[in-house]
Amino acid sequence: MRLRIDDPADPRLDDVRDLNRSDAADRRLVIAEGPLVVGRLLESRFPVRCIVGFGPKLDALEAEGVPEDIPRYEVSRETLAAVAGFDMHRGLLAVADRAPETPLAEILATARTVVVLEGVGDHENIGAMFRNAAGMGVDAVLFGNGCGDPLYRRVVRVSMGHVLRLPYAHLEGTYTTWQRSLQQLSDAGFHLVSLTPDPAAEHLADALEGREKVALLVGAEGPGLTEHAMRATDVRARIPMAPGTDSLNLATCAAIAFYERDRSTRSLG
Amino acid sequence: MRLRIDDPADPRLDDVRDLNRSDAADRRLVIAEGPLVVGRLLESRFPVRCIVGFGPKLDALEAEGVPEDIPRYEVSRETLAAVAGFDMHRGLLAVADRAPETPLAEILATARTVVVLEGVGDHENIGAMFRNAAGMGVDAVLFGNGCGDPLYRRVVRVSMGHVLRLPYAHLEGTYTTWQRSLQQLSDAGFHLVSLTPDPAAEHLADALEGREKVALLVGAEGPGLTEHAMRATDVRARIPMAPGTDSLNLATCAAIAFYERDRSTRSLG
Repeated sequence: MRLRIDDPADPRLDDVRDLNRSDAADRRLVIAEGPLVVGRLLESRFPVRCIVGFGPKLDALEAEGVPEDIPRYEVSRETLAAVAGFDMHRGLLAVADRAPETPLAEILATARTVVVLEGVGDHENIGAMFRNAAGMGVDAVLFGNGCGDPLYRRVVRVSMGHVLRLPYAHLEGTYTTWQRSLQQLSDAGFHLVSLTPDPAAEHLADALEGREKVALLVGAEGPGLTEHAMRATDVRARIPMAPGTDSLNLATCAAIAFYERDRSTRSLG
Repeated sequence: MRLRIDDPADPRLDDVRDLNRSDAADRRLVIAEGPLVVGRLLESRFPVRCIVGFGPKLDALEAEGVPEDIPRYEVSRETLAAVAGFDMHRGLLAVADRAPETPLAEILATARTVVVLEGVGDHENIGAMFRNAAGMGVDAVLFGNGCGDPLYRRVVRVSMGHVLRLPYAHLEGTYTTWQRSLQQLSDAGFHLVSLTPDPAAEHLADALEGREKVALLVGAEGPGLTEHAMRATDVRARIPMAPGTDSLNLATCAAIAFYERDRSTRSLG
């Protein structure tokens, strides 16, 4: 069903209204922006509510196939800007309802590599984490205490839609208790590795060598992992840094660890 | 010399005027923002013209020592916002004149690892490249054709000031001729390695193994290196990616290559 809408006040456009102000997070929606990410939302487990875009963008999307029961609203650039609250030059948005995350047991049953985040509130870092994890063959992202919302609009965009594809789950507990959930990972055969800038830690390559299943723990830029979390892991691993420099960006550190993990499994066959 | 200035029209504040509009690039200045980067500018080879900031920020800087001949202008938050054109909550800026880049021959005389960029116009990527290069022990950044200005304000900021410390140089030539300059690197004993997503390329670890001096070539996100550039190198290297995913961010790719380079030199002793 495709309809042209020219009135910015039309209630059928409410799902994409004032996106910058409320970020739609309060409305518990998932927003995909641009053709690539909209395509990934359509292929995902999230039930799509509507698609809003410029005529040519909708034409291109429909040429690749869109389920007929999803409403598609054709709007002008001016109308979309008036509704969304900013100029959306990519001209294509899709909105979905949230869906339950993947059960932890299901993830642990098949995963060989997972990353566990603690206290990572920055949405750009969470998005980059999903992009890097997907690109480097990590099987799932697990959230410890104090992390940002993985379905926040900015995360979806920065992840290039990979947050819609890659399984993730939240570990239960508070600031000082969530670490107990890591026991489930140990029970499932995972070797738990904390990433830390501590020069006394093992070289990353040594920490990962010969391990069949690995969980990489990463803390926020600045504070890093809590001592509570590191104590719950098997080993502390560092990426060597030049003297007098700053630590790397969080998602970059993780990407290096994902690379080393993939590299170390080459010899496992 | 410290002076309080309350008139936003005062010509002594011209160096920090309308920073967003002109980005000061037209004026051939170097702008450092925030205490960390200002400190790095003061330690750099760039001649500092003035420092502008809130009283407490200047107090803290002066406590660490500032050459007496550098003018320091104390301003209110309102004055600084009116002059710079945006609210500068970190409250400390320093401005320097540009200085000549490091001669290529001087870099090649001592460097063991360099990165060479081609067609990288994105200032955020250039800044992240410097941050990662400094952090992972890369000795210099070399610019092939078509790259952005390494002294652009955003580069200085994203690099966390490392662009002010790490040597860099531009290789001469046009789009199709700059690659000849790579011969100078070969003559100096560098093994030239192109980074590419091409699945037919060698694994990065194999491409770097056992090499005493390495130059890593990186192209822009999207188009990547030109065929011209890749032909001028000794080997094409890839970072393994999961099927159906996107390539990694440029600076992230480079960080992984820097890590592997450091890792491969561990056994060289």
